Amino acid sequence: MKRILPGHGSGGRLMNDLIVNTIRSRFGSETLQLDDAAVLEASPGRIAFTTDTFTITPLFFPGGDIGRLAVNGTVNDLAVMGATPIALSCALIIEEGFPMDDLERILDSMAGEAKHAEVRIVTGDTKVVPHGKADGIFINTSGIGTITGDTARREIQPGDRIIISGTIGDHGMAVMATRQNLSFAGNLRSDCAHLNHLIAGVLRSHDGDIRFMRDPTRGGVASVLNEIVAGASISAMLSEEDLPITDEVRGLSDILGIDPLYSANEGKVLMVADPSAAEDIVNLMRTLEHGEQARVIGTIDTEFPGKAYLATAIGGRRILPLLTEEQLPRIC
Amino acid sequence: MKRILPGHGSGGRLMNDLIVNTIRSRFGSETLQLDDAAVLEASPGRIAFTTDTFTITPLFFPGGDIGRLAVNGTVNDLAVMGATPIALSCALIIEEGFPMDDLERILDSMAGEAKHAEVRIVTGDTKVVPHGKADGIFINTSGIGTITGDTARREIQPGDRIIISGTIGDHGMAVMATRQNLSFAGNLRSDCAHLNHLIAGVLRSHDGDIRFMRDPTRGGVASVLNEIVAGASISAMLSEEDLPITDEVRGLSDILGIDPLYSANEGKVLMVADPSAAEDIVNLMRTLEHGEQARVIGTIDTEFPGKAYLATAIGGRRILPLLTEEQLPRIC
Repeated sequence: MKRILPGHGSGGRLMNDLIVNTIRSRFGSETLQLDDAAVLEASPGRIAFTTDTFTITPLFFPGGDIGRLAVNGTVNDLAVMGATPIALSCALIIEEGFPMDDLERILDSMAGEAKHAEVRIVTGDTKVVPHGKADGIFINTSGIGTITGDTARREIQPGDRIIISGTIGDHGMAVMATRQNLSFAGNLRSDCAHLNHLIAGVLRSHDGDIRFMRDPTRGGVASVLNEIVAGASISAMLSEEDLPITDEVRGLSDILGIDPLYSANEGKVLMVADPSAAEDIVNLMRTLEHGEQARVIGTIDTEFPGKAYLATAIGGRRILPLLTEEQLPRIC
Repeated sequence: MKRILPGHGSGGRLMNDLIVNTIRSRFGSETLQLDDAAVLEASPGRIAFTTDTFTITPLFFPGGDIGRLAVNGTVNDLAVMGATPIALSCALIIEEGFPMDDLERILDSMAGEAKHAEVRIVTGDTKVVPHGKADGIFINTSGIGTITGDTARREIQPGDRIIISGTIGDHGMAVMATRQNLSFAGNLRSDCAHLNHLIAGVLRSHDGDIRFMRDPTRGGVASVLNEIVAGASISAMLSEEDLPITDEVRGLSDILGIDPLYSANEGKVLMVADPSAAEDIVNLMRTLEHGEQARVIGTIDTEFPGKAYLATAIGGRRILPLLTEEQLPRIC
């Protein structure tokens, strides 16, 4: 089996081969030039700039892999800022001995996902570290996007609705199930997807109605809600009976003792929207790819200032705290 | 001693503390927001976009550290494209148990260098991986810059002069000496520096005279020259007696058997320039910070098409091949 050798990161001939024949051939001939930087034409105005590193174990999981995750994660970080993603970087840290087949599979996945998301991978870097000094492969993607609309953060108001674009907790649970070799969780799949087209579709007609957008990745929906109410006089109420959670996620959640609300999502956007527009936004999302199961899941109120909480079907109230340290499942 | 814990990468409270109190406090209050991306005002036109990951051992070396390297490396990659660096990202992969003091020292170094280079660190990401799954700390910096001048790559011509902004091989040798605990090499220091101001100074009056610019990092001067002549009908001649190499670098080079021409530089720019302007460019560089020891070190000719070679003081000719795999010292 062909494996990554120290020379693949040396700056010499083997590294040139890797970049030209393995990487650049996949990402397109104009991309990943041997120049030190890519040059892009940008329209005047504001640009969004973001970075994310992916260190997930396992590298391959039902519904995706680290490469797909790395493209979508950064595309989504730009999209939730109201930006149109235009270019990504791809920086690899590869452990010596890493199977070349796996690398090629990951790069294929990145190239395919970038194509679907209509974003170009334009610059890259590859480092090879000694065996035992990395965990297979780490991928950093940074991204830039152009902002044309109005992305001023608007103040969240009591009465605003909390919308999620689909089911909750799938990515985290799929990864945990794979890690634990839980074969009965066979239908569980990561929701890993690019949300830029979905979000652009919503912004086209509802830009002024959205107060806040975020993709609830690490820490899940509960952590994002905690962030938006922290220190404020408002609280975030989730209606338990409205939460879209699959039976597979619920089942695994019970077994692992992990609340789906704290489980990572990699293809969902959470929006806080003007109450008068929330229903329209949900109906629109349902007509768009990756938004078919969109729902209103809660409301901003003032019942527990600074807190997020769950209103149960039988009238109970449960605070959803900002978790500390090891309480959160380690997904990425 | 305070150390990095798993929770510092969990997405919970400990991670918020790390980002707000340890990272954001150093990089400036407007930077590293908890948003998913930074928003920047960009002037119309072209932008340059680049990425680089730093995996160096040791993390601290005479003349710099991984943080300083990470800022300067990306600033320089933008500068050699003729871009004015405006914003950097900072993505950290930290091994559990990494000393907090070392992290703070590295972040201080990044913040200080960014300030000197007049570039802002505007977005970031932090991942903590289990002990044994990284080598202390890896840092990825991506960067964007604006391009206002004419950066069309011009064809390199026979007769063009090869200019280096200062001494050759210092960074690689300083790192190797530190790694080998060679105490007699005490005066050896990395040349780690940001070159954007030096390059902007040259471009201001000589934009049209520069055919090519590159910072000869991994692989050194010889590898960059190989790249520019590869497959072409020209060759790159270096004049041995004109090479600015310190006695310390020469001495260590003899002991380690590493040619300084293949040793990494982290604060040098190599330019190929119109012969009529070369002398002026060198004189100008010598008046600018980090360019005090600039020299013409060679000429483009047609003697060995596709090759770089060294013309020795006694009239010899030595080809400087593109090295393969393990022939190159592993610096970063």
